[in-house]
Amino acid sequence: TMAEPLNIALAGLGTVGTGVIRLIETNAALIARRARRPIRIVAVSARDRTKDRGVDLAPYVWEDDPTQLTRREDVDVVVELVGGSDGPALTLARNAIANGKALVTANKAMLAHHGLELATLAESKRTALKYEAAVAGGIPVIKGLREGAAANVIERIYGILNGTCNYILSRMEAERLPFGEVLADAQRLGFAEADPSFDIDGIDAAHKLSILASLAFGARVDFGHVACEGIRAVESADIDHAAALGFRIKLIGLAAAEGGALFQRVHPCLVSLKHPLAHVDGSLNAVVAEGNFVGRLLFQGRGAGEGPTASAVVADLIDVARGEFGPAFAMPAARLSKLPPADQLAHEGRFYLRLTVADRPGVLAEITAALRDAGVSIESLIQRGVAANGGVYVVMVTHSAVERQVRAALSVLAGSDSLTGAPMMMHILDF
Amino acid sequence: TMAEPLNIALAGLGTVGTGVIRLIETNAALIARRARRPIRIVAVSARDRTKDRGVDLAPYVWEDDPTQLTRREDVDVVVELVGGSDGPALTLARNAIANGKALVTANKAMLAHHGLELATLAESKRTALKYEAAVAGGIPVIKGLREGAAANVIERIYGILNGTCNYILSRMEAERLPFGEVLADAQRLGFAEADPSFDIDGIDAAHKLSILASLAFGARVDFGHVACEGIRAVESADIDHAAALGFRIKLIGLAAAEGGALFQRVHPCLVSLKHPLAHVDGSLNAVVAEGNFVGRLLFQGRGAGEGPTASAVVADLIDVARGEFGPAFAMPAARLSKLPPADQLAHEGRFYLRLTVADRPGVLAEITAALRDAGVSIESLIQRGVAANGGVYVVMVTHSAVERQVRAALSVLAGSDSLTGAPMMMHILDF
Repeated sequence: TMAEPLNIALAGLGTVGTGVIRLIETNAALIARRARRPIRIVAVSARDRTKDRGVDLAPYVWEDDPTQLTRREDVDVVVELVGGSDGPALTLARNAIANGKALVTANKAMLAHHGLELATLAESKRTALKYEAAVAGGIPVIKGLREGAAANVIERIYGILNGTCNYILSRMEAERLPFGEVLADAQRLGFAEADPSFDIDGIDAAHKLSILASLAFGARVDFGHVACEGIRAVESADIDHAAALGFRIKLIGLAAAEGGALFQRVHPCLVSLKHPLAHVDGSLNAVVAEGNFVGRLLFQGRGAGEGPTASAVVADLIDVARGEFGPAFAMPAARLSKLPPADQLAHEGRFYLRLTVADRPGVLAEITAALRDAGVSIESLIQRGVAANGGVYVVMVTHSAVERQVRAALSVLAGSDSLTGAPMMMHILDF
Repeated sequence: TMAEPLNIALAGLGTVGTGVIRLIETNAALIARRARRPIRIVAVSARDRTKDRGVDLAPYVWEDDPTQLTRREDVDVVVELVGGSDGPALTLARNAIANGKALVTANKAMLAHHGLELATLAESKRTALKYEAAVAGGIPVIKGLREGAAANVIERIYGILNGTCNYILSRMEAERLPFGEVLADAQRLGFAEADPSFDIDGIDAAHKLSILASLAFGARVDFGHVACEGIRAVESADIDHAAALGFRIKLIGLAAAEGGALFQRVHPCLVSLKHPLAHVDGSLNAVVAEGNFVGRLLFQGRGAGEGPTASAVVADLIDVARGEFGPAFAMPAARLSKLPPADQLAHEGRFYLRLTVADRPGVLAEITAALRDAGVSIESLIQRGVAANGGVYVVMVTHSAVERQVRAALSVLAGSDSLTGAPMMMHILDF
């Protein structure tokens, strides 16, 4: 005979919420075999009861107030798909756990801001806080880090964490279109939000990165110290220049623990065509973890959307149904280190520099002198193409240099009237 | 205060065994934080006590007879790294589980032949049978399938499961060398065994595939029905022809559940350059799982070697230490289906055909007629290069065709004196 069902309540019936209902209904028999008990939706809550979501809600209790879900005796797990770092989502999460329910969430913003508090609360209540869907959608990278790579000192973790940015950069490259045009089209097609800032300014990726960093380095989530730069400043010309040098441009989230400090950064990067991340196109996500025994692990898949996100939510529910879960961030919250932020500008690596300059004698001498004076040496320099403003592009790759020195050179040059536009600096992913 | 340590015994001190010792010693503090208790090696056993393995065995009890490890009161987990499908490894595994110990193993051959028996025994004893290291080395693909993708109906699972074959094919391509020469060099360098048959004839990949298929489709392991073809017949010329058509050649293990039957095959395949598996080079492994909600998931990393394999073994130990484990094949062994084998020859897809023919009039007409008579239509045909025996290559890609029909055409042609060598047929990975 089959064990008791795991009874769940769903708060939030947007794309992901209805996806979870569809998945649980479609794959019910299989899930029951794998989880060794059925997973049963008991109650749901959302803002608008009357909206047609394409799924039949009649079998489920409707609660107008999501907090009621956390008080129901017949609910084992609350699935939070409301969204937003604070407000109703956080209230729901706190109440659910406080009432001894397991919490499954896809809410990266909430975890980035309140992960430690919620993890601590869940431990004190001996219940589960699971969030596979919060990072990289359907890709089981939380499990991969928390469990699969658990034997390793993680040396760094990095990846393509935002499908909207990757979609925009891929289309800018494939169709040779400017950023603004691709963004507008992505918004029309529903691949980008009406307010795209969370995606294209790197904030969404930063939320996810701060969660990955906590797991990878046994540190408290520290979203506040993620250095964050989006893709607005990437021009089609940069994509062309990068291609000529053997690179593609990707928005990369990267975290490392260096000398007892936590380095966390989201930024557009040049990725060598030889690196697997260079070949992750469109709205796909991919995460690389490098461990001291396992070497480089790569996880790739669909980072958003109804099906993939629902897949991750239900994987968490299956873990809860099986009783296979532990502390949210792999170790007890009290044992997570409070790592200070690393000095971002002390970071060493190669850099891509694109300057738009007046086409007149002496400009190259001025640029190269500024770099020399800052102690930055140049690996390659090409003068190519004509910018929209009539200037010419000077594109350089530096030898390995300290970021502070590169920025010093650029700030000297920024004051020169030889430059006809803002300089662009990008990191090169050299591992 | 820290909980009681998890006490383990290691049987087999080859590369992986010493790697496990090195990992547990090097990362001890981190493992204890993540596992919430220390993992402690208590006793070890191997054939030769005196051999210098580069690790100090003095802290551990030595047992000449590995079976003694299974009888020790102070041992919670036996780690089986002896190898071989039967014999001492199987005896050890049976005894360990029968005595209530958890078993962690990297032994794909043993699981391919005796997985169901061992899983059943482990369940009856309410202990763990874990084997992350048995498939794809350091890549947590067992966990990815068993847990990460657990919410999905898996539509197919496939990948590059043997690093030796991938290394040989990659070097044949990069250095334009024939198979035999690369194999001999790989043997000199330690990348291939003195008896390379398990690797290059696809048996090792077939062992791994049968385990993945069991997990993916909730079916009993059925190694006996994996259709298995290795890479001996792949010529440098095939790699060139494939490249000209936009493909690379990879040894692919592929399993699917089709109409209630289990399709399992290991074979060299043409993989489109657009597919991520085409870019998995050298000794890397990669596995793709396609689920009905998550879509395509890709797991990539190092499939063999001391560090990666030890990483997977210790990940299993951490799961055991955490008490986070369930039935070996995701569901109770009694609930695994006994799926009949699919009719391999009914498989439909595009095919690559390479014929070596005499350079004389009428040969092309003969070939194309044979294919037409079998109902196989040709998508593209190129006549190129000169074979070692002075014949010319006729290389074709068929339209989607049933394998039985393609084989019928080839068997007609095999009887013709127009052919100056054995024809080569490879599947094209069309998804």
